[in-house]
Amino acid sequence: MSLVSRDPVLLTPGPLTTSLQTKNAMLRDWGSWDAAFNAVTAKIRKQLLDIVNGHETHVCVPMQGSGTFSVEAAFNTLVPRDGHVLVLINGAYGKRMAKLVSMMGRKVTIFETPEHVPTTSQDVERLLSSDTTITHVGLIHCETSTGILNPLQEIADVVKLHGKSLIIDAMSSFGALEIDAKKVAFDAVIAASGKCIEGPPGMGFVLARKSVLERCEGNSLSLSLDLYDQWTYMEKTTQWRFTPPTHIVLAFQEALNQFFAEGGQRARLARYTKNYETLMAGMNELGLKQFLDPGIQAPIIVTIHAPDSERYSFKDFYNRVRDKGFILYPGKLTQAETFRVGCIGAIGVAEIRQAINAMRDALTEIGINEAIAA
Amino acid sequence: MSLVSRDPVLLTPGPLTTSLQTKNAMLRDWGSWDAAFNAVTAKIRKQLLDIVNGHETHVCVPMQGSGTFSVEAAFNTLVPRDGHVLVLINGAYGKRMAKLVSMMGRKVTIFETPEHVPTTSQDVERLLSSDTTITHVGLIHCETSTGILNPLQEIADVVKLHGKSLIIDAMSSFGALEIDAKKVAFDAVIAASGKCIEGPPGMGFVLARKSVLERCEGNSLSLSLDLYDQWTYMEKTTQWRFTPPTHIVLAFQEALNQFFAEGGQRARLARYTKNYETLMAGMNELGLKQFLDPGIQAPIIVTIHAPDSERYSFKDFYNRVRDKGFILYPGKLTQAETFRVGCIGAIGVAEIRQAINAMRDALTEIGINEAIAA
Ligand SMILES: Cc1ncc(COP(=O)(O)O)c(C=O)c1O
Ligand SMILES: Cc1ncc(COP(=O)(O)O)c(C=O)c1O
Repeated sequence: MSLVSRDPVLLTPGPLTTSLQTKNAMLRDWGSWDAAFNAVTAKIRKQLLDIVNGHETHVCVPMQGSGTFSVEAAFNTLVPRDGHVLVLINGAYGKRMAKLVSMMGRKVTIFETPEHVPTTSQDVERLLSSDTTITHVGLIHCETSTGILNPLQEIADVVKLHGKSLIIDAMSSFGALEIDAKKVAFDAVIAASGKCIEGPPGMGFVLARKSVLERCEGNSLSLSLDLYDQWTYMEKTTQWRFTPPTHIVLAFQEALNQFFAEGGQRARLARYTKNYETLMAGMNELGLKQFLDPGIQAPIIVTIHAPDSERYSFKDFYNRVRDKGFILYPGKLTQAETFRVGCIGAIGVAEIRQAINAMRDALTEIGINEAIAA
Repeated sequence: MSLVSRDPVLLTPGPLTTSLQTKNAMLRDWGSWDAAFNAVTAKIRKQLLDIVNGHETHVCVPMQGSGTFSVEAAFNTLVPRDGHVLVLINGAYGKRMAKLVSMMGRKVTIFETPEHVPTTSQDVERLLSSDTTITHVGLIHCETSTGILNPLQEIADVVKLHGKSLIIDAMSSFGALEIDAKKVAFDAVIAASGKCIEGPPGMGFVLARKSVLERCEGNSLSLSLDLYDQWTYMEKTTQWRFTPPTHIVLAFQEALNQFFAEGGQRARLARYTKNYETLMAGMNELGLKQFLDPGIQAPIIVTIHAPDSERYSFKDFYNRVRDKGFILYPGKLTQAETFRVGCIGAIGVAEIRQAINAMRDALTEIGINEAIAA
């Protein structure tokens, strides 16, 4: 039995804790054909372009489904049937990107580094020079499997120099880390409602270069995931092609309003950075070590080495911490036993501090508390 | 400006009006990895199979996205790459089905009747006899474009006799009209959360024949829409493959509980039938005529001929009725000027009666009221 009667705080990379105001927006039923709803869609599309400073060059296309659906829609639509995609991998989401591109029958080349090693611009320079048939490069901005940050600006510069197209999965970084269309050359940035904008999950979106998307009619093998069709229909009618998740759209709008009221991307990054620093100080107190080098760690989600004790099992630790009011996330590494803690969502240092104390109590219960006593 | 301060009643075929209890379920953030959430997913899957009496033969696979995503997932997964699909068309959703099957590169043959003419089992008998290369038949149970009901049992019997596979889009009929796996032979029935179960939109589901789905590994060209992968992952882990729309799942669970509390499919059909009859009596009072022959009309959504008056425009009528608290739906016919009224959602005869009065007032304002005076 849980000790808490309130819902636990989610320290996970989405679904995450949303504000009550955001959830309250779902208490209404809106018609998807009605002008009032379509005005919400239009406002969201505008606000998402604001975040990347992309109004002059890009368009925003929302898409039903989870984030992966939007990633797949971007590749299916932007990559011609005879395209050739280089996917840069250092974790599970890079692998997934390569898999979905290959399933849709486009040619894929992968470049994989270990999970604690970012792809460098030198890697990309070498790869693009040695195979000029590559047309597109797929990059995971923050690889949520570990929380590692790949050097977006440097990689984008090299891809641009070679005249290739960059498609960025920014699922867990969008809104928290800066992505400025005037500085970073990209043909698509992909993210979703339930991450750093702090909405509920249920829709994704692609910010696509207009001059490129315009030429993508007929590329997609999927009707549902045809970004060109979704875009042109929305431009023509102001409506979504197929039934939109109206409640999610309303809540996402509310979350976006709060995002701007807080001060936009910089303010959000500042809060998450404080959450991250508080968490790291706490892990240090508990004698728990970070998996990644701090220099390549994004303040989004942190991979922590499990305590080095026979008494430890993630399941037991997870259950004990959950019963104290906090949901942790399992590790995704095959080599090392780890767990993950998210720094994102409608939470601040108070919740992070509470979570550290809950983890301390759990470790004490299990009988793992060397460092704490020290 | 709207005259109502409360949200209008949605007389649309989804999103529709949901109960407050259903919406309230979205006021919580649940972790998608947590056992409590996975128990909800398991319960939904069981309840949906209960509705079609399918536990012995079928499995339920939920899918993120709108209903179309689930239709596409069913065809992409169940039809082998060298399959041949006969799609039976008498409206926009049949056309969409043919389009998505052809986009994914499967061979398609279409059979189209006018929008007021159901496909018959004789049609299907003739088509299957004359082209034995057909492997699958795609049918729209209730074609929401008009509200026409196609004869499911008779068509299913013929398809079975020929040893072919039947895939049913039951988007707007599921939960309201009987579909019994013990009587109707189908390999897939597809529907979504935001229709006659009266949940919010944001997820669909496929009830697929287990012995067939088991053999479908590797068919799908889409990772996101791979029903086999979604199913086997869920069976193994109890979790969704990619982030589920947690709030929608919780609300859908709540809606399903209310569905069973009301008395299940029979009770729901009885309520919708009363709504329909009340609506038809009202349309008669207003001198407005039904497009379809009542014998082939499902009590789900009704197509009504627009008043025969120069003063009428749908937009003006729609806005006036909306400002009185009711959202109508536009017609989808090319030949005749029509509008549509949904009978589904968490509403009863009181709301339908209110809507009729609102339509009467709107027509009076516009200056169209011959029949009313009569
Ligand atoms: C970097 C990255 N890419 C893709 C995804 C997939 O998103 P979803 O689970 O919503 O499909 C995630 C989810 O956390 C992610 O972090
Ligand atoms: C019969 C039928 N099929 C398919 C769909 C498509 O569903 P969605 O709009 O959720 O993609 C609908 C939607 O109303 C429908 O009524």
